[in-house]
Amino acid sequence: MCILAAGLIGASVGMACKARGAARKVFVWSRRSSTRAEADRQNWCDAVYATPEEAVESCDLVVICSPVENIIPLYRAILPSLKPGGIVTDAGSTKSRICRGAEAEVNSRGVFIGSHPMAGSEKTGMKHARADLFWNNPCFITPTENADHGAVEKITRFWKALGAVPAVTSPEEHDEIVAHISHLPHLLATSLCTFLSGKDPHWAALSSSGLKDTTRIAAGDSAIWKSIIETNLEEIRRALSRYQVELQRFQEILTEGDMEEMVHFLDKGKVFRDGLPR
Amino acid sequence: MCILAAGLIGASVGMACKARGAARKVFVWSRRSSTRAEADRQNWCDAVYATPEEAVESCDLVVICSPVENIIPLYRAILPSLKPGGIVTDAGSTKSRICRGAEAEVNSRGVFIGSHPMAGSEKTGMKHARADLFWNNPCFITPTENADHGAVEKITRFWKALGAVPAVTSPEEHDEIVAHISHLPHLLATSLCTFLSGKDPHWAALSSSGLKDTTRIAAGDSAIWKSIIETNLEEIRRALSRYQVELQRFQEILTEGDMEEMVHFLDKGKVFRDGLPR
Repeated sequence: MCILAAGLIGASVGMACKARGAARKVFVWSRRSSTRAEADRQNWCDAVYATPEEAVESCDLVVICSPVENIIPLYRAILPSLKPGGIVTDAGSTKSRICRGAEAEVNSRGVFIGSHPMAGSEKTGMKHARADLFWNNPCFITPTENADHGAVEKITRFWKALGAVPAVTSPEEHDEIVAHISHLPHLLATSLCTFLSGKDPHWAALSSSGLKDTTRIAAGDSAIWKSIIETNLEEIRRALSRYQVELQRFQEILTEGDMEEMVHFLDKGKVFRDGLPR
Repeated sequence: MCILAAGLIGASVGMACKARGAARKVFVWSRRSSTRAEADRQNWCDAVYATPEEAVESCDLVVICSPVENIIPLYRAILPSLKPGGIVTDAGSTKSRICRGAEAEVNSRGVFIGSHPMAGSEKTGMKHARADLFWNNPCFITPTENADHGAVEKITRFWKALGAVPAVTSPEEHDEIVAHISHLPHLLATSLCTFLSGKDPHWAALSSSGLKDTTRIAAGDSAIWKSIIETNLEEIRRALSRYQVELQRFQEILTEGDMEEMVHFLDKGKVFRDGLPR
């Protein structure tokens, strides 16, 4: 197998593959020569290539772990070099644009099956990679209608082998779901931070773990999040708009001082939170 | 010293006092007999009393750690039994109502100095108490204009002895600050949970650590939060209202697809989050 882009996700895929025997050989290409040199020193990496075309040549499976905006350009570049029967997947945080884009490529032959492991961190880079990053975490697999069933089955088995819990949805369904459970929470964390950054600068030092946890994801890399938001703009806009209605309900409860209704909402929120997977 | 109500905060105060030599003797009263029995078995507790009046009789310092709504009733009850020169503080999450309420008591003689250690958890009860709960965490001390300077000094030294970082503000300033850095984040976490609880129940299982961290505080006890919100209604309403303006700005950026502005906000949010105390 081959990993294109060996950052936090790519390197974790490589580590997990080796740790769990999911691949005989792990090859790597990464854009930066310093990352390639770093990969070359890792025991989970069998070979490093100077170009993505060379890296994929002999591989049954290619996992593109680059930032969202580079996935289709990389896919386009490697298509002519792919081994017959080779399958390509990715780890991008949005799926409609990527999966529909891959489908539109000439000679695509249905070899692209999108993936999105729900794992990561506000940290980036190979040095934060972990073999157990995907363990017990959900992983979306997002075939289009024309996807090859055997390829979908192989990709599902691959993520399972890495310890993830696969969930198969359409690319569009995926984008609606993550707009709600990932992208909206990110914008709330960010907007809370930008809001508080306009207040007395001494206030931040008085905060406790509650504010820190609530805003942890706002420390994420803005370039990565720009691409995520840009490629899922409409779903995020819709989710935020509906959330604003919910938030306005809270404002009304405060204005009315309706504490019975407030307790009802606090309890409802607690039930949902207590029900999240551990 | 004496602790009234030995839940998470009260028991942690007791543990920290003994661990750090901040009190010679730690006495306890708690409303439930089962909690009193549990306190009696703790090595940080020197004696347990059946009534708050008896518990405080010989004490130089009384720390009321009950839910917010019980603080003034308890203060009123113990006032006649207090030793001359004895000081009373609390650990309530809102301060104006409590501190102004204490001030209004006959015979109050300025012995009440409000406190609010910014520590805690979505968990409650003595079994989650920790001697290091306050360590390196901020602690508000909120004297009114008429407070005795010596008493303020003593309460400040007390929290310092427990490892906290004291911050002296007026009760009203305190309530404005925590409305922003604690109560607003709580309502955002809760409203995100109530919003998502109305969506497809399968979505929750697909979430990752981002949603979990963002919503952790929504698992808090609704009775505790009812009292907090009820006693700081106006400041929370104002903070939420201003936050809604900020959130609407994000909605506009999404509608316009203005990714340059989005990156500006993502960067601004990251700077604030990276600047929070560790």
